[in-house]
Amino acid sequence: MTNIAQYRETFLEYLQEKIVLTEPKNLYEPVVYILQLGGKRLRPVLTLMTAEIFGTSHKNALDAALAVEVFHNFSLVHDDIMDDAPLRRGKETVHEKWDINTGILSGDVMLILAYQLFENYEGETFRALAKLFSKTAIEVCEGQQYDVDFETRNDVTIPEYLKMIEYKTAVLVGAAMKMGALVAKASEKEAQDIYDFGRYLGLAFQLQDDYLDAYGDPKTFGKQVGGDIIENKKTYLYLKALENSSQEDKEKLLHLFSIQSEDSTEKVKAVKEIFNKSKAPEAIKKAIEDHTSKAFQLLETLNIGTKEKQLLKAFGEQLMNRTV
Amino acid sequence: MTNIAQYRETFLEYLQEKIVLTEPKNLYEPVVYILQLGGKRLRPVLTLMTAEIFGTSHKNALDAALAVEVFHNFSLVHDDIMDDAPLRRGKETVHEKWDINTGILSGDVMLILAYQLFENYEGETFRALAKLFSKTAIEVCEGQQYDVDFETRNDVTIPEYLKMIEYKTAVLVGAAMKMGALVAKASEKEAQDIYDFGRYLGLAFQLQDDYLDAYGDPKTFGKQVGGDIIENKKTYLYLKALENSSQEDKEKLLHLFSIQSEDSTEKVKAVKEIFNKSKAPEAIKKAIEDHTSKAFQLLETLNIGTKEKQLLKAFGEQLMNRTV
Repeated sequence: MTNIAQYRETFLEYLQEKIVLTEPKNLYEPVVYILQLGGKRLRPVLTLMTAEIFGTSHKNALDAALAVEVFHNFSLVHDDIMDDAPLRRGKETVHEKWDINTGILSGDVMLILAYQLFENYEGETFRALAKLFSKTAIEVCEGQQYDVDFETRNDVTIPEYLKMIEYKTAVLVGAAMKMGALVAKASEKEAQDIYDFGRYLGLAFQLQDDYLDAYGDPKTFGKQVGGDIIENKKTYLYLKALENSSQEDKEKLLHLFSIQSEDSTEKVKAVKEIFNKSKAPEAIKKAIEDHTSKAFQLLETLNIGTKEKQLLKAFGEQLMNRTV
Repeated sequence: MTNIAQYRETFLEYLQEKIVLTEPKNLYEPVVYILQLGGKRLRPVLTLMTAEIFGTSHKNALDAALAVEVFHNFSLVHDDIMDDAPLRRGKETVHEKWDINTGILSGDVMLILAYQLFENYEGETFRALAKLFSKTAIEVCEGQQYDVDFETRNDVTIPEYLKMIEYKTAVLVGAAMKMGALVAKASEKEAQDIYDFGRYLGLAFQLQDDYLDAYGDPKTFGKQVGGDIIENKKTYLYLKALENSSQEDKEKLLHLFSIQSEDSTEKVKAVKEIFNKSKAPEAIKKAIEDHTSKAFQLLETLNIGTKEKQLLKAFGEQLMNRTV
């Protein structure tokens, strides 16, 4: 397979087959619900694709891909409780449709189910997958904690912010790809390089998210443009603007981010003016490009075929040129 | 070592050494807190003891023992949120001392840390430990779900209740012992037998808990005697009384368990009268004895030394003769 849509299709078939309702129903119904809510399925597709790039059938990577997706959804269920989010992919979140206790316990069981999926691999592959998974899962928890901590801190630096999004988002993209490499028994060096490729791409992806949230086209962007600003989220744009603004603008920005504005349109406009004056959009675009080109440089050094490199590059470019 | 107090001491030293505060502090402070709250440390002691019984030093089992204890505490943190419990071992619960979000995330990271501790074992031992752990952890979640489901059900049967306490409590006792056997590379048969020994003992232990909660000596019993009755908990005593009472007593009991009584002393007295008339205390004592003797019968068939058998038997008898 060389087609992303095909990988997604195959993955979704496998998910339907494996994630079925068992007893106790009140525990597993939310698991089936969240896993069938949709989503781009980027991470499992990357696992399947990477397995084939390193020379094994994507079929051998289906369980690892499913583990990644189940883990990702575990983190969504628990994060949505913590963020008090009513909606996920346009549908009710688990704790909203059921209750917080159900969200906690169904999330817990998903985390364990993810580990169990690795049991379908033998010996050293099982060990390598479980070890990578634990390391990644702990980083994701730490990233979530840093994100929570940042809400009440006024001295967050850009390196701290980058570490937070690396842990919360990028390492799982790297791990998804590395799992494909592990299943294909790629060398340690190759597995590490593809991990870093995914990690850089994940960082670029999250920065792109920050950018689109403020500067995306309202016609094509799925969510409300300016949502991060309305919620006083300390994104890269905000931190960069604070760094590069005049004392006056800095104070204005700090003030705007200390209030819950009633007129959100006015607030978004005022904040974006400060962002623009400080050249924060240019800075974030440069950061996106830097991380993307780090990923592509790594790709060049990889000992894989030209066709495979092109596939990965196309995938990366597609991610970076998205408007959603 | 042949002394339970010594195993506990060694375990606590290891816990102190391994569970230390790292960044982000807001994530790991609750982990250190809950793991240092105390408790009997029964499960990790069983892991260490079983490892030595099957011929390896307890030192080789310290990581497995710690994994069991970390997992047990993960389940306490999440269960306490679900039960809205303010106190644990006489101190504030994690979600009470911090908040629910902290309890969720710190619990999550403990579940992953437990898995990570198995990485200190090589090849097949790692695999066997992680596999047993996942199976057990899923059963513990399912047991918790059944417990929640039973709160709103009026048709819970005794076999269902026994399955619930087996999953919620007993399988982790069995798994704690089996892990000791796995570390000692005992045969599959031996590992399975010691698992069943622990599981039967765990069942007897939980039934003993039910009994003591209603019939314990207020002078020596740590908690409020009658607590389960006040909270309308459908324990073995309650289910047995429903099964064996006259229609009149049955309706009276159902009524008593449908209200939040203001005079709890009166309620406890009235409920215990029905328990007594139905011979529920005798029935639960017999169930405790049955499970204990199943455990001891298994012990007889085990291919271990007489001294080792005596140690396990003494441990079992100590558990069953407790007043706390």
